[in-house]
Amino acid sequence: MTTVEPSRPSTSASTSAATNQDIAAYLRSAIRDGTFQPGDAIPSEADLCRQFGTARGTVRQAIATLRSEGLISSGQGRRSRVLDKLPSQSFDGVISFSQWCRNSGVVPGQKTQWVTRTFAGEQLAAELNIDADDSVVSVFRLRLMDDVPAMVERLNYPLEVGKHILAVDTDSGSIYEHLLASGVDIDHATRVIDAIGATDEDAKLLDIAPGTPMLRVRRRAFNSAGVPIESSDDRYLFDKASFAVTTSRGTPQPVSMVSQSD
Amino acid sequence: MTTVEPSRPSTSASTSAATNQDIAAYLRSAIRDGTFQPGDAIPSEADLCRQFGTARGTVRQAIATLRSEGLISSGQGRRSRVLDKLPSQSFDGVISFSQWCRNSGVVPGQKTQWVTRTFAGEQLAAELNIDADDSVVSVFRLRLMDDVPAMVERLNYPLEVGKHILAVDTDSGSIYEHLLASGVDIDHATRVIDAIGATDEDAKLLDIAPGTPMLRVRRRAFNSAGVPIESSDDRYLFDKASFAVTTSRGTPQPVSMVSQSD
Repeated sequence: MTTVEPSRPSTSASTSAATNQDIAAYLRSAIRDGTFQPGDAIPSEADLCRQFGTARGTVRQAIATLRSEGLISSGQGRRSRVLDKLPSQSFDGVISFSQWCRNSGVVPGQKTQWVTRTFAGEQLAAELNIDADDSVVSVFRLRLMDDVPAMVERLNYPLEVGKHILAVDTDSGSIYEHLLASGVDIDHATRVIDAIGATDEDAKLLDIAPGTPMLRVRRRAFNSAGVPIESSDDRYLFDKASFAVTTSRGTPQPVSMVSQSD
Repeated sequence: MTTVEPSRPSTSASTSAATNQDIAAYLRSAIRDGTFQPGDAIPSEADLCRQFGTARGTVRQAIATLRSEGLISSGQGRRSRVLDKLPSQSFDGVISFSQWCRNSGVVPGQKTQWVTRTFAGEQLAAELNIDADDSVVSVFRLRLMDDVPAMVERLNYPLEVGKHILAVDTDSGSIYEHLLASGVDIDHATRVIDAIGATDEDAKLLDIAPGTPMLRVRRRAFNSAGVPIESSDDRYLFDKASFAVTTSRGTPQPVSMVSQSD
């Protein structure tokens, strides 16, 4: 593990004070482009202060930001180091299987089983914050990775959102991209990740035995006002996907393991 | 959804300028204690500037911090809202099953199957960055939640760390707490989460059928210098644990779904 000496980045303006966001952007970029390698110590606070002409507090804020993003170690009084693994998933990749595949260098595919417009029913109504007799649009697709069956996808939308899908060929491309193009505001999402055995329906589509382990990702997506616009259930064949998480001591993160006892 | 009007917090000192960390701490605390409820808009940037007597940039940095922690929506030009779910897991809870249980209101238990000191072998050597003929200490335990078998735990330590465990009764409490008390520096961790069928060994311990779906969490823990100090493999019965993740558009997070095709 070597120590990288800082050089004044060309992006820092000497005429106005750098903000902690400027410093964070510099460090983030240097990590992403490999200037700082995993295991490398980042420049010292004193060096960063000199380099950017800012107070120590500003540099510390920038370093805290990088920690919360899982890019560097907590340091604990010593200099933070670039972490080995740099997991990161774009928001597009969180919402869209097609985008996630492309970001992973995999060719996405789909075989739509059905598209339905019907009443929400109790459970979907609760998930979408609508009434049980409100209309929803549901899509059931087999998803492929490099032409190999990999995931069973169940998407559900309130009619206001799902109406944009009804007229679309759901075998031709990304529903997510179509929703964005239709002006749907997709702002944030919650995901619950667990393991589950394949149902008969899953098993038939994937040509596996019922009960085969699957990685299930249940997602709710919301608009900027906090209104649910999607509730979905994706089930990956156990050997097709995993999740990577990096955690540093003392850094709150939006990830939690949840006990099913409570 | 109501809008909460800001009140000047008693913690803000009027004699020195508040930092973005002060403002983030105030917002975080107001969300955690329920002053701001899920769905509520947080105070406007202008109101926060007045309340804390700071520049808008400082307020924006605080808001960005809360977003990266998954506490508020991205806003996209509008005011950010408190998100529905506030997943968060302490670092202790990431490393220690016992701590995680206690944080979840569950009584942790364990039945040690064996503790072994032996050679690392190829795979463990790679995971711990040591030589294959270096010594490791391995612990194999059945873990219980409220007295019910829930997880099969395989812990592996380089001898330098594991030596602290060899003399300990691993049925009496948390190995993690013992390591901390022994002065071991545990700084950050990476986890890979996926689904897998129970092996014969798992199945026998948990009294389930081989192949039963399990949620597997493989963890590597590191000290502040980036040296691996633990490599572990925890397998939860599928109905005992799940992961919750919150993601907002435009906010980098230390979580990524990983394709197994590549």
